[in-house]
Amino acid sequence: MNSESRLTLRIYMEDTDAQGVVYHANYLKFFERARSDLLSSLGVDQGQWLSKVRFVVHELSLRFRRPARLGDTITVVTRFEVASEYRLTFFQRAQDESGQLLVEGRVEVVCTDGGGNLIEVPAQVRPSA
Amino acid sequence: MNSESRLTLRIYMEDTDAQGVVYHANYLKFFERARSDLLSSLGVDQGQWLSKVRFVVHELSLRFRRPARLGDTITVVTRFEVASEYRLTFFQRAQDESGQLLVEGRVEVVCTDGGGNLIEVPAQVRPSA
Amino acid sequence: MNSESRLTLRIYMEDTDAQGVVYHANYLKFFERARSDLLSSLGVDQGQWLSKVRFVVHELSLRFRRPARLGDTITVVTRFEVASEYRLTFFQRAQDESGQLLVEGRVEVVCTDGGGNLIEVPAQVRPSA
Amino acid sequence: MNSESRLTLRIYMEDTDAQGVVYHANYLKFFERARSDLLSSLGVDQGQWLSKVRFVVHELSLRFRRPARLGDTITVVTRFEVASEYRLTFFQRAQDESGQLLVEGRVEVVCTDGGGNLIEVPAQVRPSA
Repeated sequence: MNSESRLTLRIYMEDTDAQGVVYHANYLKFFERARSDLLSSLGVDQGQWLSKVRFVVHELSLRFRRPARLGDTITVVTRFEVASEYRLTFFQRAQDESGQLLVEGRVEVVCTDGGGNLIEVPAQVRPSA
Repeated sequence: MNSESRLTLRIYMEDTDAQGVVYHANYLKFFERARSDLLSSLGVDQGQWLSKVRFVVHELSLRFRRPARLGDTITVVTRFEVASEYRLTFFQRAQDESGQLLVEGRVEVVCTDGGGNLIEVPAQVRPSA
Repeated sequence: MNSESRLTLRIYMEDTDAQGVVYHANYLKFFERARSDLLSSLGVDQGQWLSKVRFVVHELSLRFRRPARLGDTITVVTRFEVASEYRLTFFQRAQDESGQLLVEGRVEVVCTDGGGNLIEVPAQVRPSA
Repeated sequence: MNSESRLTLRIYMEDTDAQGVVYHANYLKFFERARSDLLSSLGVDQGQWLSKVRFVVHELSLRFRRPARLGDTITVVTRFEVASEYRLTFFQRAQDESGQLLVEGRVEVVCTDGGGNLIEVPAQVRPSA
């Protein structure tokens, strides 16, 4: 199990909806930004690797506890484990500035080549022995 | 348990990502469109009701089976049950034109007033005795 | 100059923002859906053609006159002209159910190959002599 | 005329499309993030002010010069002037890490109250004499 990484971001108008809160699907964008930054910090360049290695969301679950609103600053906390040769499990949560939980979830990601075939999780992402 | 409703839609450039497929979070938008149309068909006017009754996503899970691509036509199939006094459970799936499963999921929705307090599921949505 | 084409669509929660109206950038999505449908009706299969012919927005201007809201039904009216060997000019507007203007704009689109080089507007899109 | 402000951001999967580049409409989101940060730095709390003062996009034009791609870091450079009692004109451009221009535009924003009536640009945003 890796240590936690954190991404802090502001809520902009684009993130909100007519209920005055963050639109539920947008937390998946925030979570994906956090996973991308984490992978990038491990040496994974998703942009360069698109034709060779892709990280594809396979399954996910989310629980919404409190809403975030326009102008709020939230932090996405992410940790992951290598669940199989081909699969990573990310445990992610969004919390407000006082640390209160907003949304929590689990995202299963598989690695594929450019053609969609399962491939091994790259060495950069596997824990060193 | 209600019967199934169907929403057919095309995949546009806005829905896709650099992997050449529909961005995973966008299926939540498609599912929400389908729930909105279903609620609308039962007499729920979400736009008019915003200050009185809101349908808020509380929990969800999704499984991604096959990707959809630019120009594809997909159908979202939705059914729901009244899970409690305050809560609706939607069972939703997206399928391609040949009926093959793309994405399936479950979305738990609670009813709240404009201030976020739980309220009863409106009569329009409850099955008639 | 071609005749007008029309795309009617509903405003969903995803389209709105905390001001209670459609988020301004989303009209560009609606306009692009309308252009895609129009091109498709002329025989352009953007999904299949991605590696050969791309329609790339080069320049645009928009004027916002009235807001649309959750649950509204709006119509995007589109016409275009072939502005040069490489370029199409689309004139687009969104209007409400009573025909009142919401947003109007002009979108310049150039045709490129998969590598971004300018290519001729495909024959399907050019007016027959 | 105010001095320039800068917002640097990474391109994530959510920002891209099947052409492998940033979807054109998303630059409007980046530009709006930059305007929000700039207004915030002047003391405008858009979230708190929603019922009193709103900044509404009234008109805009964009020119797309070069594409940005997944993983790129771009900077949005913004300056503005008070164009009238009710209106602000923002001059914005996105550039890549070497300073090359990607997208440039002009966005006219009017101030309204919560009901959509024009109101004066708040004192925080007007240049001090």
